[in-house]
Amino acid sequence: MIKALFFDVFGTVVDWRNSIAVEFDRLAKEKGLDLDGQAFALAWRRRYVPAMKVVRSGERGFVALDTLHRENLIEVLEEFGIDGLSETEIDELNRAWHRLAPWPDSVPGLTRLKKKFILATMSNGNVALMINMAKHGGLPWDMILGAELAGTYKPEPETYLTGCRLLHLAPEDCMMVAAHNGDLVAARDLGLKTAFIARPTEYGPEQKVDFEAEHDYDVIADSMEGVADQLGC
Amino acid sequence: MIKALFFDVFGTVVDWRNSIAVEFDRLAKEKGLDLDGQAFALAWRRRYVPAMKVVRSGERGFVALDTLHRENLIEVLEEFGIDGLSETEIDELNRAWHRLAPWPDSVPGLTRLKKKFILATMSNGNVALMINMAKHGGLPWDMILGAELAGTYKPEPETYLTGCRLLHLAPEDCMMVAAHNGDLVAARDLGLKTAFIARPTEYGPEQKVDFEAEHDYDVIADSMEGVADQLGC
Repeated sequence: MIKALFFDVFGTVVDWRNSIAVEFDRLAKEKGLDLDGQAFALAWRRRYVPAMKVVRSGERGFVALDTLHRENLIEVLEEFGIDGLSETEIDELNRAWHRLAPWPDSVPGLTRLKKKFILATMSNGNVALMINMAKHGGLPWDMILGAELAGTYKPEPETYLTGCRLLHLAPEDCMMVAAHNGDLVAARDLGLKTAFIARPTEYGPEQKVDFEAEHDYDVIADSMEGVADQLGC
Repeated sequence: MIKALFFDVFGTVVDWRNSIAVEFDRLAKEKGLDLDGQAFALAWRRRYVPAMKVVRSGERGFVALDTLHRENLIEVLEEFGIDGLSETEIDELNRAWHRLAPWPDSVPGLTRLKKKFILATMSNGNVALMINMAKHGGLPWDMILGAELAGTYKPEPETYLTGCRLLHLAPEDCMMVAAHNGDLVAARDLGLKTAFIARPTEYGPEQKVDFEAEHDYDVIADSMEGVADQLGC
């Protein structure tokens, strides 16, 4: 019997691309820069997996995603030829990840699911990032789990297993909910139940994968409300 | 500027004594036992600090409070001459700590405070216990921090400091809220702000200490709503 749902967050629960783009379009307007927010968001995100890989491999000790995001931001600002920002302005831009907007179905779906299950984030985002995002967007988590508590990044097994252990639950009592096949396969290999939500616009025109479920997950839906429907909430 | 509030939970947010007593009075009725729920609750709680002390001293590796509670429960059942309970019944009784009722002012006060601050538990209760209690009583936590994440028990400094570290906040940006002077003094010594809530009926007739604030804390109140008043919520 499933007792807890673990959620991937970036892309699955919130729309990082448009949220980041809006902030950089605003910056462009304020500073009179020739800058495409959408292109900037995608360029920033492109550096996400490689930055974590160095930590996952053990080559670099664990650092929170806020730190990786900031290092990547500085590189992308340079790539886009944007200079002259103060350290405070860079910090503030980096916290754009703390202000991502939920997909329209996320809060209604999570609110229904919360009545029956423990809802926990299982994100690579650090604890403060997840808490600030939840307060910003009204995400009703019971607990923030994920990378920072495990000291490594998904899809390392320890990330998921630390979550199960902290809830005193067996993997089979937990279900991973994600819009990414890779995340679900990693969780399934550890014994967790799985739910796929299709988010075909996550990457916009750049999206190449994850248009649909590539495996026979326990739940396959096209929204958080669809997950709630299928789990009888 | 305070960004996060850390809450002691047993006694400060929830009324453990009457909640436990009700469950054991019910057990007495069901089983036809001569058992005083209030006396049982106090006897069980009396074994709480000594059990944690063995972990805090390093004599015993960290075990979750659920485990200590269960060991203590078995001793108290023996002390009260109650036998013949199944392992499942004992597990179920042990989870009485997951079902503690909030003091009447807790949810209204926390709901007000949540609009302005990050609300995190800073309890010796383990994560699953805290989550189940929150779902049972409607406690609107943003995060469960405390003993299990730190791997030791309050008032060990590492318990509070792990919480600050996970929120990426300095101790002075956090405020410890508790009904116990010892808890507040430990937090204050680490640089946290402090708020005292008087809970003069926590232990019932057995209460000997903590009737009032023994130091000049940043906030001194007689309810969670009083804390919200003084923090401008």
